[in-house]
Amino acid sequence: MIRFTNDYSEGCHPLILKAMEAANLEGNFGYSLDPHSEHAHALIRAACGRPDADVHILVGGTQTNQTAISAFLRPYEAVIAASTGHVCVHETGAIEATGHKCIACPADDGRLTPEAVRAAYAANTTEHMVKPALVYVSETTEVGTLYSYAQLKALRAVCDELGLLLYLDGARLGSALAAGAVTLPQLGELADAFYIGGTKNGALFGEALVILNARLKPCFRYNIKQRGGMLAKGWMLGVQFEVLLQNDLYTELGRHENALALRLRDGIAALGYPFASHSETNQQFPILPDAVVEKLAPDFSFEFSSKPDASHTAIRLVTSWATQPESIDAFLRALAAAAK
Amino acid sequence: MIRFTNDYSEGCHPLILKAMEAANLEGNFGYSLDPHSEHAHALIRAACGRPDADVHILVGGTQTNQTAISAFLRPYEAVIAASTGHVCVHETGAIEATGHKCIACPADDGRLTPEAVRAAYAANTTEHMVKPALVYVSETTEVGTLYSYAQLKALRAVCDELGLLLYLDGARLGSALAAGAVTLPQLGELADAFYIGGTKNGALFGEALVILNARLKPCFRYNIKQRGGMLAKGWMLGVQFEVLLQNDLYTELGRHENALALRLRDGIAALGYPFASHSETNQQFPILPDAVVEKLAPDFSFEFSSKPDASHTAIRLVTSWATQPESIDAFLRALAAAAK
Amino acid sequence: MIRFTNDYSEGCHPLILKAMEAANLEGNFGYSLDPHSEHAHALIRAACGRPDADVHILVGGTQTNQTAISAFLRPYEAVIAASTGHVCVHETGAIEATGHKCIACPADDGRLTPEAVRAAYAANTTEHMVKPALVYVSETTEVGTLYSYAQLKALRAVCDELGLLLYLDGARLGSALAAGAVTLPQLGELADAFYIGGTKNGALFGEALVILNARLKPCFRYNIKQRGGMLAKGWMLGVQFEVLLQNDLYTELGRHENALALRLRDGIAALGYPFASHSETNQQFPILPDAVVEKLAPDFSFEFSSKPDASHTAIRLVTSWATQPESIDAFLRALAAAAK
Amino acid sequence: MIRFTNDYSEGCHPLILKAMEAANLEGNFGYSLDPHSEHAHALIRAACGRPDADVHILVGGTQTNQTAISAFLRPYEAVIAASTGHVCVHETGAIEATGHKCIACPADDGRLTPEAVRAAYAANTTEHMVKPALVYVSETTEVGTLYSYAQLKALRAVCDELGLLLYLDGARLGSALAAGAVTLPQLGELADAFYIGGTKNGALFGEALVILNARLKPCFRYNIKQRGGMLAKGWMLGVQFEVLLQNDLYTELGRHENALALRLRDGIAALGYPFASHSETNQQFPILPDAVVEKLAPDFSFEFSSKPDASHTAIRLVTSWATQPESIDAFLRALAAAAK
Repeated sequence: MIRFTNDYSEGCHPLILKAMEAANLEGNFGYSLDPHSEHAHALIRAACGRPDADVHILVGGTQTNQTAISAFLRPYEAVIAASTGHVCVHETGAIEATGHKCIACPADDGRLTPEAVRAAYAANTTEHMVKPALVYVSETTEVGTLYSYAQLKALRAVCDELGLLLYLDGARLGSALAAGAVTLPQLGELADAFYIGGTKNGALFGEALVILNARLKPCFRYNIKQRGGMLAKGWMLGVQFEVLLQNDLYTELGRHENALALRLRDGIAALGYPFASHSETNQQFPILPDAVVEKLAPDFSFEFSSKPDASHTAIRLVTSWATQPESIDAFLRALAAAAK
Repeated sequence: MIRFTNDYSEGCHPLILKAMEAANLEGNFGYSLDPHSEHAHALIRAACGRPDADVHILVGGTQTNQTAISAFLRPYEAVIAASTGHVCVHETGAIEATGHKCIACPADDGRLTPEAVRAAYAANTTEHMVKPALVYVSETTEVGTLYSYAQLKALRAVCDELGLLLYLDGARLGSALAAGAVTLPQLGELADAFYIGGTKNGALFGEALVILNARLKPCFRYNIKQRGGMLAKGWMLGVQFEVLLQNDLYTELGRHENALALRLRDGIAALGYPFASHSETNQQFPILPDAVVEKLAPDFSFEFSSKPDASHTAIRLVTSWATQPESIDAFLRALAAAAK
Repeated sequence: MIRFTNDYSEGCHPLILKAMEAANLEGNFGYSLDPHSEHAHALIRAACGRPDADVHILVGGTQTNQTAISAFLRPYEAVIAASTGHVCVHETGAIEATGHKCIACPADDGRLTPEAVRAAYAANTTEHMVKPALVYVSETTEVGTLYSYAQLKALRAVCDELGLLLYLDGARLGSALAAGAVTLPQLGELADAFYIGGTKNGALFGEALVILNARLKPCFRYNIKQRGGMLAKGWMLGVQFEVLLQNDLYTELGRHENALALRLRDGIAALGYPFASHSETNQQFPILPDAVVEKLAPDFSFEFSSKPDASHTAIRLVTSWATQPESIDAFLRALAAAAK
Repeated sequence: MIRFTNDYSEGCHPLILKAMEAANLEGNFGYSLDPHSEHAHALIRAACGRPDADVHILVGGTQTNQTAISAFLRPYEAVIAASTGHVCVHETGAIEATGHKCIACPADDGRLTPEAVRAAYAANTTEHMVKPALVYVSETTEVGTLYSYAQLKALRAVCDELGLLLYLDGARLGSALAAGAVTLPQLGELADAFYIGGTKNGALFGEALVILNARLKPCFRYNIKQRGGMLAKGWMLGVQFEVLLQNDLYTELGRHENALALRLRDGIAALGYPFASHSETNQQFPILPDAVVEKLAPDFSFEFSSKPDASHTAIRLVTSWATQPESIDAFLRALAAAAK
């Protein structure tokens, strides 16, 4: 079975595992108050060009989104997100569980647009409605597309105009950085807060939340603890990000997964199949005849994404830091064969 | 100024006021544990043909929806509602504030359809998504349309098939009963819970929640108290519903407001104006040229509902138990004059 | 049956009923955005000597406490209150339902002391514990005792020192004002927010929340709506407080109930019975032999408060604006007879 | 610096690290739906003698308590716990953050007693109060003491009588099993749910929740996801518990830490110092003169637990699976020297 199911089917990069082993018996103070965590935070601040940022490394993505967003909002405030956004769809209502509505907006190839933000804002105008307060975007998006720096700047401008916070979910930020869509210093400039996702880019687990807006910083660790996200052996989070930031391993892993994904994309396109989104990153969504999908299923694992019509399925193929080039070749061969 | 702003611009029907005066100094046990409340509950049970129902009279509609729905659901369960539904739009995220997502579905002239329920259910299939558990409908809908008995039965059938609860918001149920769309015994047969709205149909305040599904009944009063909805002088809620249920004053008031609303509708239609919805009840949404709206504004109060195009506005005209026939005539005359 | 059960067994003072009748058909904008509400707010601001205060009149006490406290706190912040405090005991966990811990402190005859506040603060020092943020006091307390102006000033000083908010629950503030413990301008000076209770002092329902701290004011109406506390026919709240503030009817009603309560207290004490608290207000807690309580029960209604030992019960006797002097005489006669 | 700060200053046992390395690149389905997790669940079910149990392994203790308790309760239901209980004190109000009150009871050397449960139940009797629904105990307790099987049986009997759930926090269960206080099959017999703590007993992270009561099982994974506790690379949780359960490594590690702790206790006692609790497990709380504490501080790390008087401090000394016997000897030597 060759896996394109997701980018968290394998554990962590060997360098990370080695560093975790090295730190295993060091003896460290718990709860991320240790030299590894401090060092990782410093590396992240430097990489973002924001020495003033607060960095907190949490275990997982839903946890990070929930903890951050619930900490940033007043009870009646709401999130504006694309209808395809992770917080709208794939977190079991984790934001709502903390009391906040997610306003789902039409997505443009997975992206939230300034127009959609304006429309959501304009539709919620009185105290009988929620008060939009935070714009949520994912980079890369849930369908593999990217926000360019210009697009994020345009969203920032709308946020400034309307008094909204800009929050960026970087679960797959490695892939976005590798694709050249945006840089960490640009995020350090534009976002009120964002996170650098480790789980889907080489770490065993871990998401580094970067808080840039000074108003959002005080007492944040109380929120982490209250939401159940404070890891006792927190230095193991620090260790992983120390490695990811060194020699920019983080972006290098993104380049690996992107390169393989684009090879997959180009090979599939060459066979004449269309795609459900214009992804340039490590998730590809080819639309295949059901009969073809059936032939691939015994040897390749992947998720079903949507049914554009009765006889076709868009499947999701994901590459990771651990994906082997041979796996791409095998898939393309099998696809070519299945089409016959 | 003649008011078509809403159906809660006046206080209560004179018979209700008289009954409240009579009960003012009686001396009653608090918190709705009094003979008036018990009598009102019994009248409602009888009117619904459900001697087994639990009845709780709360003060307001948002409070009733929030208390009931949060009591009925497990933390990860969600509400399915039309995108125009009151819980989706006009309650400041009160459902989300208790931790539950509202899944907004495309509305068909204000109505939720079995197809929309099915689609929402089918789109939420794993533990990474919320679990749809309760279908919310309003009778009359927020745009004045009605669910027929057959339509509600179809929704009930889908709910049974998919294991969902059916909850009906009866803020304007008086208007619906008067329109003959449905009867209280039919609701007693179809819903898991619903409420009979007093505030918008002759009461000073008060919404009578009828719980039919035995699983939803235990300890419900704890929820009322915890959500801040338990009125100390609760017998004043009982007194009001005693009056509304006697001689079916409740439906009679609905007939009054419907009759005036339809006269308004027919008069406006006769002048050639279209409507934003096919309302047969006490809310009418004519689409008028902005210039005409401007001429009416100094003498009539109403809400702006939507902007179908750059030069037209759909306004909302609401009649109530207290609306005078002369007010309808005055509006139609003014509209005819404004159009010239 | 003569009722000493509570101070909400009767409806409202005749002057209030009359004013509600007069306003019944006026036609007013809803949701407390009407001239009566504005006038009542202005009268309250004037009475407190705080023209800058924000006033919001809600329907009930638990609702007011829940809405205000949840609006004022960040998610990880907690309330410090006496263990006998209403929020700790008698609101079905309404504060916890909004996510906040109530830290219960030892009560001194129903009062929270600066020492207890300091101790609660000192015991919660890290992000692994909640962060104390708001001190809750009730005036009068739940056992009928009073905070003097000096005692409230001492609590204010501790709050200032430790960075805590001071919130005062005035469900029975009428009785406290009448007893001369404190004045409205003194509360206007000392509290961050407090409420003037109507339900237990002559109103049909209604509690006027006064927000003094500017940081707590923005967007407060969103919270009212979201928690289900926004009354459609809100002018009826305004009307009631217009009457209560005129000629200081509010304090006059407090004087009536206090005078009768002290007559009750003195008569009981003269018969040799002790009390569970040193109440100078409208709740009295005599400790009586169980045999005596049994003899009184058929003719007088009251609540059982505690069992100091196996053969005695502390009962709660409450007087209200509607209590008749004859009822006091009847009780004292019956008690004297029962003791024989 | 020799660390007695806690039992999570080191990473994981070498056998666990080895197993994690071995599983690192296997390729597994995510979210604990993998063979390692299934195997670990099966081993735990077998160890508890409950083939019907549902097992879910979460990352941390606060997360486990919060997820489980909020899943098990209705909104108005409350937890009964010792005032020293972890959920009452050291989880930043995580239970309250999900809407539930924790009723803090007097602790008997860290233990909750049947009498305290009864008293808490008896004090909350109406819908104006929370409804006690779940008894929370920790084994070992927060002060190192133990519940015997007989004591847990007595609590179970009270729970059965009063209709309460019994939930056991096993953050330090390894130490309790090693001390012979209770066995896993006994917990399988007595509790409605409990967790086997990995973080504090040799795992890198991970707490295995065992749900025994069938009513509490459905849809539990929704709660894990919604509270942010579903680990993407969940097989790494399974791997760790596979190792801990094999050859009963879990209890063996507990024996190691207990043996060293008792050696510490006996040595300190031999020097004449008293203890703040009668701990037989891996946390010891000697009461030392402040001057002695000061002399120890440069070479040994530990937490300050309480100040029994102005010149003494109870410190907390914790041993772990990684503590070396030489560290005990060094501490006792230093203490003997400091006392001179």
